[in-house]
Parts: sequence; C-alpha cells; structure tokens
Amino acid sequence: MPSRTEDVDLLAAIGMVLSADVYSPIDTPPFDQSAVDGYAFSFSDWDQQSPLKIEGEIPAGHASHEKMKAHHTVRIFTGAPVPPGMETVVMQEKVEVHGKELHIKDPQLILGSNVRLKGSQTKAGTLALPKGHLLTPASISFLASLGIAIVQVYELPRVRIIVTGKELVLAGAILKAGMIYESNSAGLTAALKILGITPLSVEVIDDDERAIMRAINRTIDADILILTGGASVGDYDFVPSALEKCGVQKVFHKVKQKPGKPLYFGVENQTLIFGLPGNPAAVLSCFYQYIRPVIQRFAGKPHDPYFNLPLADAYKKKPGLTHFLKGKVEDGKVNILESQESYLMNSFAYANCLIELEEEKEVFVAGEMVKVLMIN
Amino acid sequence: MPSRTEDVDLLAAIGMVLSADVYSPIDTPPFDQSAVDGYAFSFSDWDQQSPLKIEGEIPAGHASHEKMKAHHTVRIFTGAPVPPGMETVVMQEKVEVHGKELHIKDPQLILGSNVRLKGSQTKAGTLALPKGHLLTPASISFLASLGIAIVQVYELPRVRIIVTGKELVLAGAILKAGMIYESNSAGLTAALKILGITPLSVEVIDDDERAIMRAINRTIDADILILTGGASVGDYDFVPSALEKCGVQKVFHKVKQKPGKPLYFGVENQTLIFGLPGNPAAVLSCFYQYIRPVIQRFAGKPHDPYFNLPLADAYKKKPGLTHFLKGKVEDGKVNILESQESYLMNSFAYANCLIELEEEKEVFVAGEMVKVLMIN
Repeated sequence: MPSRTEDVDLLAAIGMVLSADVYSPIDTPPFDQSAVDGYAFSFSDWDQQSPLKIEGEIPAGHASHEKMKAHHTVRIFTGAPVPPGMETVVMQEKVEVHGKELHIKDPQLILGSNVRLKGSQTKAGTLALPKGHLLTPASISFLASLGIAIVQVYELPRVRIIVTGKELVLAGAILKAGMIYESNSAGLTAALKILGITPLSVEVIDDDERAIMRAINRTIDADILILTGGASVGDYDFVPSALEKCGVQKVFHKVKQKPGKPLYFGVENQTLIFGLPGNPAAVLSCFYQYIRPVIQRFAGKPHDPYFNLPLADAYKKKPGLTHFLKGKVEDGKVNILESQESYLMNSFAYANCLIELEEEKEVFVAGEMVKVLMIN
Repeated sequence: MPSRTEDVDLLAAIGMVLSADVYSPIDTPPFDQSAVDGYAFSFSDWDQQSPLKIEGEIPAGHASHEKMKAHHTVRIFTGAPVPPGMETVVMQEKVEVHGKELHIKDPQLILGSNVRLKGSQTKAGTLALPKGHLLTPASISFLASLGIAIVQVYELPRVRIIVTGKELVLAGAILKAGMIYESNSAGLTAALKILGITPLSVEVIDDDERAIMRAINRTIDADILILTGGASVGDYDFVPSALEKCGVQKVFHKVKQKPGKPLYFGVENQTLIFGLPGNPAAVLSCFYQYIRPVIQRFAGKPHDPYFNLPLADAYKKKPGLTHFLKGKVEDGKVNILESQESYLMNSFAYANCLIELEEEKEVFVAGEMVKVLMIN
C-alpha cells in the first residue's frame, strides 16, 4: 500500500499525520522574555535592599538593544524582551514605586525570576514534532509558534465510488414502480467526509456488465475503489465478473459474516477494490470493518481500537457466521439495537458502535464481554 | 442564546443535529420486495407438493403490473418487486429446475418467506428521525433512502477571531528582535475546524485601544467573538476597556484557574464575547473548557462528557486555583504531561485530554480519581 506524502498548508493539516520529523527553525521564546508585567533589573548587580532607579519602558514587541545602566530598572510588560545586562523581573504587584524609585517587596525573588529564557520551549535545530505525530489543534498552534507554515503529511487516499443497481433513483426524482431511492453513495460519502475525504467521483450504474466495466476502467486510477451492489453470484451480479474482465486480481470473495456475506476484495496495480453488497446496512458495516482501517493506514494513523464491553441484554444467533450488530454504548454497557436486518437503516441511524459476535457461538448472556468497534 | 436553524443539503448535514422531526414521505420498502434471488409464487395457491410452472423473470428495477396466473411462478431477483397475487419467494439454492418446472425443496418455507413487506422499515407519514438527532453516516443513508434531499438542522455559530499583540509576526515573515510568531489564530482555527466551523474573520491587531475598538465594532455581528491577548489589567491590556467602551456588558473577568486566570466573558446583544489571555496554552485550555461547550449548545449537541479516571502518577500543586493540566489518557489511566506552563505548547501537542484539579486541594496520589475532559 503506497504511503504518499504531500506538503500542505499548516492550517489545512489539522487531523493529518506528519510524514517527516519537524525540526525547529528557531529558538522559542526567541529571546529572554518577561513572563509578567513588572520591572526588569540585574539581580547580581542589586544589593537586595536599596531602591532601583526606574528608567524607560519596554512593551511587548519592543526591540531593546541598549545596555542598561547599573542600579537601574526598566518598566517591562508580559512578552517583552528582557534587555541585555538584566536577567530578573519583579511583578508589579510586589513593588512600591515612589517617584522614579522602585522598592522591591518580594522575598521569594531569585536570580532569573519571571523570565522565560530564550530557547526554553524549543531550541533551534532540535526535534519539534516527530514523524507519525497526529496534528491536533495544539500541535498546529505549536508549529505556528515556530514560524512553520507548511508541513509534510501522509496524503489521504483518493477514493472513487461506483453504485450499481437498475432499481436506483436519485433523491428528488419521482419514485416509479419497482424503484427505490439510492442511498449508499450518501452513506459512504458521509462516512468518508468524517475521515477528511471527498470522493473523487460517485457514479450510479445499471446492472449491466459492460457499463460496469466501463465505470471500473475510468475509476481504476483511485487508491481505493468502492463498488456497491451486484457483489453476489446471481444472474444480475455483474461486479465480480466485470472486475475480473478488467484485470482485477481477486484476493477474496465472500466472508462468513452477517451482514456483508458477498463482500469482494481485489487489487489492480496499486488500487484496492472493495465490492460491497447493495443493502445499505451491509455497506456501512463493511465500510467500518474493512475500509476505514485501510484509510487510516494510508493516512499514517492507528486503527480505531476495539473495546471489550459487557452486553446490556442477552442475545441469540445462529452459528456459522460472524455477526456485526448495530449497537449503542451507554453507561459502560453495550446495547444491541432492534432491526438488525441488512436492509434496515432506521436502527443503524441510532448506533454508535458495531458489536462483533463470534462465528460459532449461539448464546450470549447479559453482562458477557463482547468486542465493540465505535463508529461515526 | 439563539438556536437558529437552516435548511441544508443532506450530504452537507453530516455531524449536524436535526432541528425538526423528519417524517417519511414514502413507505420503505416502497413495494413488497424480494430479499433473495429465487422464485416468487403464491403460497396460499400452492399445494406444497406439485411443481410450479416458471414463466417470466423480474429483475430489480422492473415494474411488474400483470397479475400472474395460478400455479405459476416467476424468476425473481434481490430487490425486485414481488408481483401482485404472489407473496412468497423461495431461494434459488432451495429448488430444482427441470425445464420450465420448479420443484421447491425448502421445508422451512412459510407464507411470506423472503419478502420484505412494503413499509416494513418505515411507513409513509410516520416519524423517521426526531428533532435533536445527530446526523451520522447511517442517518444520512437512511434519510436518503426515503428520498429526502434537504434537512433542517441547527446552524453552527458564526465565529470571529481577534488576536491582539504588538509583538506578533505572521508565519513566513522574518522574526525581528523582540517579536514572536503569531500562533493563537492557527490553534483556534484548527480547533474550530474540528467542530465544523470556519471563522468568518481572523484579524491580528496592535496593542492599541482604538485599533482594538475598531476591530470589535466590525466583528460584533458574530455569534461568538474570541479575542486573545491583552485580557489582564496591565498598562497594555486594552481588551477589557475596549470591550466596555464598545458597549459590551461584562459577565465575568478573571477566574480562579491556571492557565487562563485573566479570562473575560461578556455579551452584547446576541453576541457572546470571550477575551482569552495571550499565552497559547491558556488560549486552547480556555477554548476547550468554555467555548467548545457553547458551540455544541448552539449546534444542538450534548457537551462532551467529563470522565473520572485514575491518575497514573502523584502530583502536587499550590492551593487557590483550579488547575487544568495537559494530560494523556492511556490504558484507562490519565498521565500528566511535562511542561505545564501556559506559554509552553510542546507538551500540549501530545495531549488528548485536560485534567481538572480542584482549587484548594494540594496533594494528589497515584490512582486517585480526577475529572478528565477529552480534547481534539
């Protein structure tokens, strides 16, 4: 699987993963910086008793190059550079000022108090963030503070979608007899959007082998090609044969699972091809179980973890297939939602997880630990 | 706080919350639909022994209006409409076909087998999803299957950002003496982007009361106005006074917390104004603690929950302020990261949570339960 990288604007990189170490081009703070509003002076030059003479003022953003005089102090503000020859700042709350005289009333004060030393966050040339680091808002803020405007990250995969089915009508159109509204492209596009991906193309194609072959040939440049419908072995299931005729190498076809038994997976050059069933619940279940982890791998991210959680209620199933059930995690337990059939989406709309129930096991008791994958 | 609603394209609504109940305009399935590839017939018309005569074929997407003849069966495919007068489908795996004769070999078969009845998922006119429902990918797929193309959702708040500070330089520019790179707008913009919000404007303004007032006056149309820097009470902290002169009504100024002690909050008409400190770590800490919950309220979403988790290591702090520490939740425990000072972002970049430590408490032992807010 290719791990392509790209240079992107720092602000566009939120949620992406660094594909190279980032070294700091500068020291931060870039200079000895006052941490408070107060008065800067030389602690070593001070007798710890006499008042100092106030001369001048350094606000934040001020460049101070002049060497200050002995026994003098300068008014300084948070973020401002501490002038050369000085190294200590006393907070304005801990002084008394009489005319131009500063009386320091801070027994805790030591050399270097209230000064953030140059390079104390990051030193120029040192590692700021490593390859593999997920760019959170705080990471973005940190890199911005180093003056970094562009970062190298793992590219997200290019995804294309082909929805097959003669019975499909687009939302907004009139539903003629025997037809249903096409919804798989909407579900997949939404699930991809959460991962930061906009599919390069979405096509709705008839159950016609030649039409499907043409669609495959124009979309095989994707990193991930997702087809829905026609994945089984019936007279009108043209997806596996069309993929074969297009030179796709089958890796597996059919999985002992429910929903999504007809799932097909193949490769052609660098393209990964997933042939999903046509039922909307099977489509999203397969997406979360098979396609999302692949996308995360492309993006340099860890997979979403599986959790072991107790079942809220008992459940029975037939042996022979692994079941992926729509569930809802609440208060540390996982509830199995009603309406688990693969064509029913109304309970899936309320799910926040998929529950994996073992192939051969039939009876699950309340409180039993089961494998749970959070979704959405 | 206003709860504005808007009509958006279904696909643009991912992650948003319905602001009105959605009723199904149609029955789904819209017709009695075959769940398998097989043969449709009338169970009540069949003597459960004799073969049936195969006549015709109904693929998915086919409109079948003709009444079928007695003792006849029709080849049918998954998703196709079961013709009038028939109500049962036998799977193709459970028959024998001799010429035009169909011999059914399915002792389990009952009236209505393998048929998804019209309206069995959703009936026309009934509630599909309620007001307050979060639009997940499965919700989007479900609504698309009802032919719904536009949904009414809670509008996200309009946010504007004003960053103040004479010492700030934009990334890419040369860092002159006494200056630092501006990073708060990047951190805030990234944190907003995760919530689906692009700020309407981001301005960087000098520490100058009149300039800040002008900036406030041109941004006060926002739902949420975020300012950073100049929030304290020093000679160059012009934000509170500028807000007052612009007619903003102060709700509170200063919170017994670390970081973010100078936090200001005010209102003007319907606009909520947050004056954050200038230190990057304080800015993001205040964003997650104060601003994110407000945005979630606007969007009709529940707040992110607080978790109680055990501390991985002991910790000591001074009494008098609530501390919000950068932390990392791993293996069910929460670790306190190094470098907690409010100007340090390098540890924040690794944080996945903020840990809240009580105001007066000083000693925290390993394993002690603490309040944790997940971030990013």
